Amino acid sequence: MTRAATYIALTGARQPAHCCLPLALALGHRACPLDDFLVFNVAFGKTVPDISYNAIANLGYADARFLAPVYAGDTLSCESLVIGVKENSNGKAGVVYVRSRAFNQEGVEVLSWVRWVMIPMRKQTKEQRTQAPKVPELPPEVEAFRLSVPEFLKPAALEPRYTGSMRTWEDYAPGEVVNHPGGMTLEEAEHMLATRLYQNTARIHFDAFAARSNQFGKRLIYGGHVISICRALSYDGLENAFAVTAIHGGSHANPTFAGDTVYCRHVVVGRDAIEGRTDLGALRLRMIGAKNVELAELPAIAPGGKNDAVVLDLDYSVLIPRRQSA
Amino acid sequence: MTRAATYIALTGARQPAHCCLPLALALGHRACPLDDFLVFNVAFGKTVPDISYNAIANLGYADARFLAPVYAGDTLSCESLVIGVKENSNGKAGVVYVRSRAFNQEGVEVLSWVRWVMIPMRKQTKEQRTQAPKVPELPPEVEAFRLSVPEFLKPAALEPRYTGSMRTWEDYAPGEVVNHPGGMTLEEAEHMLATRLYQNTARIHFDAFAARSNQFGKRLIYGGHVISICRALSYDGLENAFAVTAIHGGSHANPTFAGDTVYCRHVVVGRDAIEGRTDLGALRLRMIGAKNVELAELPAIAPGGKNDAVVLDLDYSVLIPRRQSA
Amino acid sequence: MTRAATYIALTGARQPAHCCLPLALALGHRACPLDDFLVFNVAFGKTVPDISYNAIANLGYADARFLAPVYAGDTLSCESLVIGVKENSNGKAGVVYVRSRAFNQEGVEVLSWVRWVMIPMRKQTKEQRTQAPKVPELPPEVEAFRLSVPEFLKPAALEPRYTGSMRTWEDYAPGEVVNHPGGMTLEEAEHMLATRLYQNTARIHFDAFAARSNQFGKRLIYGGHVISICRALSYDGLENAFAVTAIHGGSHANPTFAGDTVYCRHVVVGRDAIEGRTDLGALRLRMIGAKNVELAELPAIAPGGKNDAVVLDLDYSVLIPRRQSA
Repeated sequence: MTRAATYIALTGARQPAHCCLPLALALGHRACPLDDFLVFNVAFGKTVPDISYNAIANLGYADARFLAPVYAGDTLSCESLVIGVKENSNGKAGVVYVRSRAFNQEGVEVLSWVRWVMIPMRKQTKEQRTQAPKVPELPPEVEAFRLSVPEFLKPAALEPRYTGSMRTWEDYAPGEVVNHPGGMTLEEAEHMLATRLYQNTARIHFDAFAARSNQFGKRLIYGGHVISICRALSYDGLENAFAVTAIHGGSHANPTFAGDTVYCRHVVVGRDAIEGRTDLGALRLRMIGAKNVELAELPAIAPGGKNDAVVLDLDYSVLIPRRQSA
Repeated sequence: MTRAATYIALTGARQPAHCCLPLALALGHRACPLDDFLVFNVAFGKTVPDISYNAIANLGYADARFLAPVYAGDTLSCESLVIGVKENSNGKAGVVYVRSRAFNQEGVEVLSWVRWVMIPMRKQTKEQRTQAPKVPELPPEVEAFRLSVPEFLKPAALEPRYTGSMRTWEDYAPGEVVNHPGGMTLEEAEHMLATRLYQNTARIHFDAFAARSNQFGKRLIYGGHVISICRALSYDGLENAFAVTAIHGGSHANPTFAGDTVYCRHVVVGRDAIEGRTDLGALRLRMIGAKNVELAELPAIAPGGKNDAVVLDLDYSVLIPRRQSA
Repeated sequence: MTRAATYIALTGARQPAHCCLPLALALGHRACPLDDFLVFNVAFGKTVPDISYNAIANLGYADARFLAPVYAGDTLSCESLVIGVKENSNGKAGVVYVRSRAFNQEGVEVLSWVRWVMIPMRKQTKEQRTQAPKVPELPPEVEAFRLSVPEFLKPAALEPRYTGSMRTWEDYAPGEVVNHPGGMTLEEAEHMLATRLYQNTARIHFDAFAARSNQFGKRLIYGGHVISICRALSYDGLENAFAVTAIHGGSHANPTFAGDTVYCRHVVVGRDAIEGRTDLGALRLRMIGAKNVELAELPAIAPGGKNDAVVLDLDYSVLIPRRQSA
């Protein structure tokens, strides 16, 4: 099932590794690999019926690793393991921690991630609440040695004629801030199309009639779609960051609704060398999604800091070619 | 031309037979077969320019049989035969009965169905009206012996790990009512995308400027899209009903508009054994589509009964595995 | 990357050469060629980041030639050459003339066109403005001998059973006016989906927050999408015009916004024989797109004439079979 064209229409994704076959082949792929966040969102969608169909909020991510490329025509299956639970003090909801893993049709693990979600609890008396809280220890980051870089990758193939940019790993300095120029106004039809494309069925995104009685009185946009929009917007400035390799952590800091216009800022967190590879490196980035605001006027947001305009704060790493000596 | 991914984005279809290649192959298919209602809607669309471009209403269906699977890349062509006509007493419109048949590029008939539509009449004097009414006799149902079940089908392949459900043919008792949990709010952009995907050009769905002067003052949603939405919503509860095999009858009981939220209830009508097959059976169902209502509060609707919230009442049959003795 | 199904959903395109594989093969193609305006819009999109990301308006087209068919899976790349510049008298913006060429992955040129756009200027003093205006000489038309007709084409394959129409090149008389029957209301979600499908990033189409301060206070619809809608609407009346071969000139006469309903009129300008071909000819047409108006009430628009309802006036040529002697 190829969903790549629909994904482009929904997000504006332009990273050429995913839509330029000659480049994909030169990189060593056998076809155009799917956009990493398309893979993430499809895999995520498969966990919804078992985990978060009735979720109140998707609270955070940790230890997400993109392990192998996925191609059009591949079939993904997922398994999830509940690794922790914690009741809220009000006894009405609780947090569930889940490790999910996605596999392709050959059984190759392509993605592994932890997320935690807030889910309503069954009604019960105080005496019935006997489950001891168990909060899993989660790594604060995916260390560089745990990143999965396909051996076959030939990143030197990503010549400037493909992306228009000559910037390599060395050119991004920790602390650098990039306010990407575009903005994307989101519509009800669009986020529902995207969320259905991912076969994500969470009710809060689709049912305006039921949503009248939620705290916002309307449908919420699936956070993974906001990530995809920000990834697409950030092509202008991160042209050569051709693959996503890990998500260290992150949260959907505020809800996004139809009618909101999303902008994206990136902050360069650091550079990680990859053992045994002089041709590419990992760039650790903070993807900040903000809505209905001029990015130039958005203050610096400290990690963990809050701002009413910020809807996404994602700590993740991309792969990018290193400068080659002549 | 593969429209499967766009169909998923538009409807949220999740039946794995249509999007999980390993399962499709295990069932005996050579590729993922297209969703049956995608086939129905595409075939229907091909009949619109000749039959119902200016139709006032699509009144009913009968004797629809899904005869052979359709795969991505197949090309469908259709032929239609007018089998009956009846003028309305006011002489301004009439009902036209049509048998349509769809064939793939090899000439294999994949779908056959009857529908009747109300169409405006040319202006004429009473004396000019000479066409004798001819109402065709239509079978009240597609009898089980007329259902087309591909010989190659291996329904035992539909293991619970694919759908999460162990329910088989035997587990659905006549009279059982299933209120499916999801709801889908429809937007103008979505139903127009879907209806164009089916290459259905009926004016009433696309032209808001002209629609100002129709009885509703706005665009109507194509009824076939509502059927597709209901089929997708009903996956939760009918997980193993992997194929649609017949439509016995049905009607679009009320119009659906953008902004409406559609819900789906199924009522089990009966079980039909298939001659020569102990591995699958047919389940006869009533698909009731309702809008802007809590299904739990929707009363039972007698066959042929009316309710302002009900937009669809479809009498059809699906194929589902039978329980296998150990 | 196949975008054909999404294009159908977005535009309602029905020309069977692009979606009926048996016909495409009979015409001599190796697969269904992509719709010509899909190719045009994708190629156009590739020029936006370098040419018109911040454009105020897309002013006109000239000398566009469709040189070779494009198939699903092909990869297009583009190069653009600035061939002229002219400052506006107010010194705040200027017109840039660009020749762009699109190539497939084998280096075959598939499309070549000139367009000119209005672009804001950097702030500068009068003394700094030293660039002499250079307005390129552009041909008023693509002469028939410069049209590219694939040798392999067998237009006789386009039998009436494919399109329902027997009209050939000979049947269209210069001066004939066709008011196509359909109308299409455009939604924000749709034009953004289409424009992203073309990987066109021009800000004015996507960012409602920034658009509050433009002259219209809202997003504008990409003109190329309006062309695609008009091409799709005009199938009813130009059924056998199976390929677009040239754009002689044209302009987006007025802006189009979400909520507008687009209609299409064609005026037959002339017929051009193709050297060495007795089986097909070129039909020169004016495609007039109008919004929110009954076409029957739209007066004749002289070439270059204006009307508030007219949003598109395109002078172009299509290929169509010639009548075959028995």
